[in-house]
Amino acid sequence: MINRIAILGTGLLGTSVGLALREAGFKGTITGWNRSPEQGQLALKMGAIDSLAGDAIEAARASQVTLLAVPIYATLDFMEKLAPVLGPDQLATDVGSTKRLITETGTRLYNTPARAAFLPGHPMAGKERGGAALGDTNLFRGAVWLFTDDSTAKRSPQAAELVKHWREWVVKMGAKTLDLDAARHDDLVAWVSHLPQFTATALSALLEEEVGDAPELKDVGGRALREMTRLGASPYSMWRDIAHTNTEAVERALLALEQHLAYLRENLRAPGLRNEFEQANRFRRE
Amino acid sequence: MINRIAILGTGLLGTSVGLALREAGFKGTITGWNRSPEQGQLALKMGAIDSLAGDAIEAARASQVTLLAVPIYATLDFMEKLAPVLGPDQLATDVGSTKRLITETGTRLYNTPARAAFLPGHPMAGKERGGAALGDTNLFRGAVWLFTDDSTAKRSPQAAELVKHWREWVVKMGAKTLDLDAARHDDLVAWVSHLPQFTATALSALLEEEVGDAPELKDVGGRALREMTRLGASPYSMWRDIAHTNTEAVERALLALEQHLAYLRENLRAPGLRNEFEQANRFRRE
Repeated sequence: MINRIAILGTGLLGTSVGLALREAGFKGTITGWNRSPEQGQLALKMGAIDSLAGDAIEAARASQVTLLAVPIYATLDFMEKLAPVLGPDQLATDVGSTKRLITETGTRLYNTPARAAFLPGHPMAGKERGGAALGDTNLFRGAVWLFTDDSTAKRSPQAAELVKHWREWVVKMGAKTLDLDAARHDDLVAWVSHLPQFTATALSALLEEEVGDAPELKDVGGRALREMTRLGASPYSMWRDIAHTNTEAVERALLALEQHLAYLRENLRAPGLRNEFEQANRFRRE
Repeated sequence: MINRIAILGTGLLGTSVGLALREAGFKGTITGWNRSPEQGQLALKMGAIDSLAGDAIEAARASQVTLLAVPIYATLDFMEKLAPVLGPDQLATDVGSTKRLITETGTRLYNTPARAAFLPGHPMAGKERGGAALGDTNLFRGAVWLFTDDSTAKRSPQAAELVKHWREWVVKMGAKTLDLDAARHDDLVAWVSHLPQFTATALSALLEEEVGDAPELKDVGGRALREMTRLGASPYSMWRDIAHTNTEAVERALLALEQHLAYLRENLRAPGLRNEFEQANRFRRE
């Protein structure tokens, strides 16, 4: 049974997990840590955590489950620091958006009978802006929470139990779990998550050039424009690590979209336009 | 005062105008016509129109205001047929998504003292699917309704009055009006409306290729994917006329987006990535 959880990183995701765990009936302690103490204090005030730790490593050492809810490179850094500190009755898990590097690091440093477990996780939920203030009890309701577990893991019985119980809490938070191979995960999210983000960023940046000096014209676009550029507000600080750790798959996806746009452009008065619309309609069939 | 309106085309927009006029307190008669009688019957049943006409030209001849709510080429066709039939105490107006060709045709065939008025209009409201069944009393609430009026118009006093009253009804339906030159309109909507649509179409068509055979994977993308592909459901039948009548502006916009995506792709591990995100953030600043 899980009684002591540490959440390292109380931004949007960490804060939402704390709130969702409480809503789902978690009665144990939740210790939080955040690089910026203000965000940590906010999460505390919102009830997402019970106490704010000054030292992330100490907070993890004193917990059964440590959730890493920080950007990808910070997650990898914590994995290195925690591996020698945690033992076979402890679990570390994460919420990072790319999984190949994190899963490989987990295999290298965790998941033997004498070591802590590491369970690589990725909730497909978020908002275009981060921060504890946007923390949301229902963020994971109906969302898919992906796991790319280490197929070579040889965990202690206690560590294996913690993995099982954490998966149960994820379901209690309202998410649907789905297990994927880490390489397949990174390829898939390049298409269904990273490509939509980079498309919205490119479209928003272009429109800033074209109509940015006439903000009243943004109204003209209505709902379609608002939706297609909402993710344009997403911060570089989060997406840099994704671009760096899934570069080849994102490059392939971007190039493929450039080719589809060029095809549309060359067929605006030709039958190819119908083909492209009909293929798009099939993607959205109900 | 306007007492008799004909709505030619009772699809999503025509039906929504009928409903919104009633909601706004219009007490006169609204006659509808639709190429497919089933859609007309549905609009009648929904209360968007009072009667369904068998002959569109006769319905227009018997009305003070005729709203053309059909695709662009059908609008141009009706403009040709109605010009000799309507007189200087009548107004025709439309809802077409490109305005250069329609406004030129209005200048050529209408807007002299002896002829009917033609007021080119374009409500920036719609849905990704069409049809009377989706007709919505509140479709225009908060939306911008663009006009690209003919600056050379020399209208009879009665026709000028009808133009003024129709503009008032548009405001009563909840829309904000904005006047633009027709060429400027077509250039602007290429950026803020047509480009987002064609981007969603290209993205949806691409994703159909990549993950279309595994529909469960669409769930993985969550809200971001749903929003970025919602317009993928838009029908070719409506967008063909837009592609044909605003080709050069849409080509420019698509090419510019291809260039932004290529820039992102070439800078996934370079400082250019930050520039693009920060420029996109500026577009979405609040």
